[in-house]
Amino acid sequence: MKCAYGVDVGGTAIKIGLIEEDGRIIKKWEIPTRTDESGSKVLPDIAAFIRGIRTENAEGIDIIGIGLGVPGPVDGNGMVLTSANLHWEEPIDAAGILSEMLDDTEVRVANDANAAALGEAWMGAGDGSSDTVMVTLGTGVGGGVIHQGRIYTGVDGAAGEIGHLCVNPAEKVRCNCGRHGCLEQYASATGIVRLATEVLSGTTENSVLRQRPISAKSVWDAVKEGDEPAIEVAERFGHYLGWGLALVAGVINPDVYVIGGGMSSAGEVILPYIEKNYRAMALPAASNARVCLAALGNDAGILGAARLMLQDEA
Amino acid sequence: MKCAYGVDVGGTAIKIGLIEEDGRIIKKWEIPTRTDESGSKVLPDIAAFIRGIRTENAEGIDIIGIGLGVPGPVDGNGMVLTSANLHWEEPIDAAGILSEMLDDTEVRVANDANAAALGEAWMGAGDGSSDTVMVTLGTGVGGGVIHQGRIYTGVDGAAGEIGHLCVNPAEKVRCNCGRHGCLEQYASATGIVRLATEVLSGTTENSVLRQRPISAKSVWDAVKEGDEPAIEVAERFGHYLGWGLALVAGVINPDVYVIGGGMSSAGEVILPYIEKNYRAMALPAASNARVCLAALGNDAGILGAARLMLQDEA
Repeated sequence: MKCAYGVDVGGTAIKIGLIEEDGRIIKKWEIPTRTDESGSKVLPDIAAFIRGIRTENAEGIDIIGIGLGVPGPVDGNGMVLTSANLHWEEPIDAAGILSEMLDDTEVRVANDANAAALGEAWMGAGDGSSDTVMVTLGTGVGGGVIHQGRIYTGVDGAAGEIGHLCVNPAEKVRCNCGRHGCLEQYASATGIVRLATEVLSGTTENSVLRQRPISAKSVWDAVKEGDEPAIEVAERFGHYLGWGLALVAGVINPDVYVIGGGMSSAGEVILPYIEKNYRAMALPAASNARVCLAALGNDAGILGAARLMLQDEA
Repeated sequence: MKCAYGVDVGGTAIKIGLIEEDGRIIKKWEIPTRTDESGSKVLPDIAAFIRGIRTENAEGIDIIGIGLGVPGPVDGNGMVLTSANLHWEEPIDAAGILSEMLDDTEVRVANDANAAALGEAWMGAGDGSSDTVMVTLGTGVGGGVIHQGRIYTGVDGAAGEIGHLCVNPAEKVRCNCGRHGCLEQYASATGIVRLATEVLSGTTENSVLRQRPISAKSVWDAVKEGDEPAIEVAERFGHYLGWGLALVAGVINPDVYVIGGGMSSAGEVILPYIEKNYRAMALPAASNARVCLAALGNDAGILGAARLMLQDEA
């Protein structure tokens, strides 16, 4: 039975999965991420842990390699250019280093958002679609592009940076990236709180949002209750995100958009706001693409990472 | 010597080239496009002409097939969905039909703008770059995406529709596509005339543009003469097109943008206006991509079409 380890390296925890070539998760583990000493312990910790579990999992299992998802840009040659979360400041050949620590076991590396997109395209909401774009709505907005079943990295590892598509060059507030009017400023959990504050300050209408601390969750809960100002916030959010997906459509015309990240836990309620605007703003030829919620939750990362190795097997 | 015919089907003329696998054009021809009878003569005319020249070119030449660029969307399965210029109203398997007319010679088909992009990526300004985006500035704005040396069609053939990226949802004037605020409304030859009219009506400043009929050419000529209102038009044009390319960068992060089409004949003068805005609006990681003028002129189409066949040979 052909298997691979999928490793999803986060800023606080490293998730590791042993994954079969048909996408079944045989076993999962989690170890803490030690980011001190400039993140130099991260790869040795992974190597040591895998050395341990490898013996334990030996029987009847043919491990063809390790896929690694890391929080930072990875260029077309597999170099991790930097990783703020792991305190990696210089470009690092993470795959080569880990491979050497594990007796030349083959290792492939990808950006973590891209790995999650690959996981969803393969085993999740993408449902085997060959051209899937995943958008992750969390504190920021991340993204990943899957083309013909593989991650599209771009020449500098910057493909799929959906959160930093500019949708408002006139924006006064600066985005974390230093520019103005990025999609992330409106469609992230932080962005929707900002939109809600704007909407509430622009109306005297009653709203349950005035009685609670505003968060992405409280906004979507209020939408579910039919709260008018909250619905206006959802409309604005949908305008920006629908526009962002329409921009993606005009460049690469995928067939599925998968919406994931913390905000997607609000559920199906968010989809109509995105879809309505997407279908109005995308070219007619591309306007029938599917927009759906992510299906794999936290497992997307380890599945996608393992898929990096398993995709050449079938 | 391996060769292919590259056929670039336009609304008034069909260009045909006999192309060697290293990209040399051995010979070129042109025949009129007969679009009457719902465009049903187009493929038979091409077949008859190629049957004629084939005999003439027989010696020492191994023709591996025919590449066809057509003015209309071509989906991932090679179906030409429609072609207004050729009066094709139903989806048509143009490659299959032409192949059958020519004793099963292999035929591959692509959208003409995509074929031109492939030609430029292969033998022109792309200079062999694997990830090139071409933007064609004419009456409208067209585009083509080349990834790993091949055309990226998208699932509905709508990838690379750079001209219909929305850069202003508040636009009152409707685009030809039926939507509002498409890049084409500002960055095409028609768009720049509109921008010029706006700029001139908003200022009393003297301008050579007031003494001539306004056209894309007269605007760029005036920019070259240092005419201030014309320079303001160029700035606005550059803002929109630079923004458009930055949006492309955020999705697929290519390494070269090739600017072609009629307006590119204005020359190098247009590049700084595009580049400045692109570099300011693209993610820093992607901001060093090259922006350059197309190099092949009318030959891009036949070269790209032939490349469809020759790309699997090397």
